[in-house]
Amino acid sequence: MIKNLGANGNYKYANRGMTLESDIEITNNFYLINDKAVIYKKPTPITISKVNYPSRLEAVIKEGYFRTPSTTDYNGVYRGKYIDFEAKETKSHTSFPLNNIHSHQINHLKMIHKHGGIGFLIVRFTTLNKTYLLQYEKFEEFLKQNTRKSIPLSYFDEVGYIIKDKYNPRVDYLSIIDKIYFGGKL
Amino acid sequence: MIKNLGANGNYKYANRGMTLESDIEITNNFYLINDKAVIYKKPTPITISKVNYPSRLEAVIKEGYFRTPSTTDYNGVYRGKYIDFEAKETKSHTSFPLNNIHSHQINHLKMIHKHGGIGFLIVRFTTLNKTYLLQYEKFEEFLKQNTRKSIPLSYFDEVGYIIKDKYNPRVDYLSIIDKIYFGGKL
Repeated sequence: MIKNLGANGNYKYANRGMTLESDIEITNNFYLINDKAVIYKKPTPITISKVNYPSRLEAVIKEGYFRTPSTTDYNGVYRGKYIDFEAKETKSHTSFPLNNIHSHQINHLKMIHKHGGIGFLIVRFTTLNKTYLLQYEKFEEFLKQNTRKSIPLSYFDEVGYIIKDKYNPRVDYLSIIDKIYFGGKL
Repeated sequence: MIKNLGANGNYKYANRGMTLESDIEITNNFYLINDKAVIYKKPTPITISKVNYPSRLEAVIKEGYFRTPSTTDYNGVYRGKYIDFEAKETKSHTSFPLNNIHSHQINHLKMIHKHGGIGFLIVRFTTLNKTYLLQYEKFEEFLKQNTRKSIPLSYFDEVGYIIKDKYNPRVDYLSIIDKIYFGGKL
């Protein structure tokens, strides 16, 4: 669902309290409407243990539990390529804590990369108002060369890409993908 | 979750009561383990309206509702290509009722096709024990040329592909994808 729409249906740019998740949702919706890409957030995986049927046509979940996801949150297709990524925010000023990403999500991105898909992370340092795209390859490189429990901001500056804050689309990560994989310009 | 596993962890071939959904789950798991493809079923979309926290680490959903999905159930990557499909069973002997597929799922497949992904349906006629793969292109062709509310079995025989019943992987739809898109043999 798209929240925080202005009276004219446009996103309220003034609202700086938006989460990365809702910014990406607005962005993906922009891509879809403008026929640029088809990328969705996967629903949260839930194990349902009790359902009531107040009527023949209605089902109400009365008990359920959140499951740990096996994959990343976002995937889809862009210019014929399979796209797959995870998006995370951190309040840290200096580094991105790795406990934000599950080990099976890292493994999932590894598999995606192996099978010819484009995998990456989008990481926002909320207090700095900076959002980066980090390719899976660079992420893997870091994990191989370090035993640190967080990725320093300097690594993002060095090998990542800043996703510039725009009006519309809000978090234009595909412009970075164009640059990296399709020889586009930033 | 994989159900109906034998003592050795293998799927019990004898069990004919398996649904198409669980057969595909076993198949996707086989593809994943054998490093052939990364394809997952998306979680069922749910709107959660009430959550209890019996402890700091535990969350229990106490009220939720099923949402109509905007996309198909399955997607992933195979040989660098984006794969997207919907799987449905019918008890009919003669045709596949189109009310099994939501209009936004059809539209989703259309978009996938447009953006260079591989989209299709897997349809099982349970009483005939026949499972077909129908490319999105052929599905669209049918919808354009017909006002019928169901696709006759003969159309599947004519332009679809039978997915042969195998031991492992159970519903080997990627062998058909190989044939159609990568010049493989059936």
